[in-house]
Amino acid sequence: MPCYKLIVAYDGTRYNGWQIQPNGISIQQHIEDALSIISKNEKIRVIGSGRTDAGVHAKGQTAHFKTLQEIDLSKLLYSLNGILPQDIRIRAAEKVLDNFHSQYSAIGKEYHYHLHIHSVIDPFNRLYKWHFPHPLNLHLIEKGTKLFIGTHDFTSFANEGHAGAAAKNPVRTLYRLDCIHTEEDMRFEFEGNGFLYKMVRNIVGTLIELGKQKITLDHIEKIFAAKDRRFAAQAAPPQGLFLIKVNYPTQL
Amino acid sequence: MPCYKLIVAYDGTRYNGWQIQPNGISIQQHIEDALSIISKNEKIRVIGSGRTDAGVHAKGQTAHFKTLQEIDLSKLLYSLNGILPQDIRIRAAEKVLDNFHSQYSAIGKEYHYHLHIHSVIDPFNRLYKWHFPHPLNLHLIEKGTKLFIGTHDFTSFANEGHAGAAAKNPVRTLYRLDCIHTEEDMRFEFEGNGFLYKMVRNIVGTLIELGKQKITLDHIEKIFAAKDRRFAAQAAPPQGLFLIKVNYPTQL
Repeated sequence: MPCYKLIVAYDGTRYNGWQIQPNGISIQQHIEDALSIISKNEKIRVIGSGRTDAGVHAKGQTAHFKTLQEIDLSKLLYSLNGILPQDIRIRAAEKVLDNFHSQYSAIGKEYHYHLHIHSVIDPFNRLYKWHFPHPLNLHLIEKGTKLFIGTHDFTSFANEGHAGAAAKNPVRTLYRLDCIHTEEDMRFEFEGNGFLYKMVRNIVGTLIELGKQKITLDHIEKIFAAKDRRFAAQAAPPQGLFLIKVNYPTQL
Repeated sequence: MPCYKLIVAYDGTRYNGWQIQPNGISIQQHIEDALSIISKNEKIRVIGSGRTDAGVHAKGQTAHFKTLQEIDLSKLLYSLNGILPQDIRIRAAEKVLDNFHSQYSAIGKEYHYHLHIHSVIDPFNRLYKWHFPHPLNLHLIEKGTKLFIGTHDFTSFANEGHAGAAAKNPVRTLYRLDCIHTEEDMRFEFEGNGFLYKMVRNIVGTLIELGKQKITLDHIEKIFAAKDRRFAAQAAPPQGLFLIKVNYPTQL
């Protein structure tokens, strides 16, 4: 069966997350409905590279679907965008090998987490940044990011998944964790081979605790060693998080 | 009576514009309501530098108000922002001379108008930019901007005001009109001594007609000469427009 890959951007504000759920509207549901319309009622399942939670955004979520029909690629992007609401956009569509799988073929992901660190909320970014108006020790935060880079057991920074169970293998490799800031804004850039459930938001929450000097650099080592989610800080709120890109082997 | 000046930023999406109206919620109304709360029910009138229409945004609208009470300036900004919705923010508050008037003392204004000129809507800027997916001759647009700079009778680029009458004096001076663009985005920056009703949006609409090559540079000269609004193009939509700054003499 022909297999197609989609690059999807969405403003997650209005949605209950990527994944189809019994209650609430999902991005996956909207794309399946749009595909059903353009394929004349073929039931097409769209599979994303992973879930994003309610309020979380994407600039480069990746999904794939298989269909019984040959699809005119030159029209696919425009037809889908013509049906989808404006806060969900297909940025690119291409035919891929039929062994491509948006989740299992992925070899890495990039996430950004945005904060507005000025005393006054930015009204144009209230839905896209975590507003944090309190003093932060940025030097300490930068030192803290170094402790997360590399291969670690991230159990303490992972929530239980939707099935109620933690990931079987909690070891992940973070290739890059940069903190970029101006006087008003701060952005964390994460690049890794994979991320556990709520891992980015839990790491950001912990780095902000460090910046508030509520915990020390030593304490982060202890959180890792505990292998227990309860030792890390509260997750940073969803609206600052963006899935930027999903990476695949070049041959797929 | 003590007089206070406010610098206000707002996301105009949810509002019926700056000005209090019989139907619909205005930004002015929200600020007056918030001042009424912190002043223990004194009826305080807030006067803006000018109206902005429904859907138009501001990063630096300026307003003033007079009150019977001395106000603790160190608390004013935080108290107002504590009451106002997050899409309206007081960025600064200061005490000014009691002859200050946000509208009549103004000596100039700056507006930006944003377009997204990529084929696919940017889901994060759908409420802050005009999505224009068609080809544009950018070189022609840049030439066109030069025709607006300087002192002109802008009658053809002004709609009738809310009172149903055109401005008494339709002559305005545009100090600067820049067009800044990347492959995906375009921004017009206007700076002038004053702007007639819908003047910025009407000029942008006309420059885009020029970029589409529906009209010529010569035609713009003819629109000016006609002194008739019907000769210019349709106004650009409101969501791309931002009031950036209102300028006052330094002694006020």
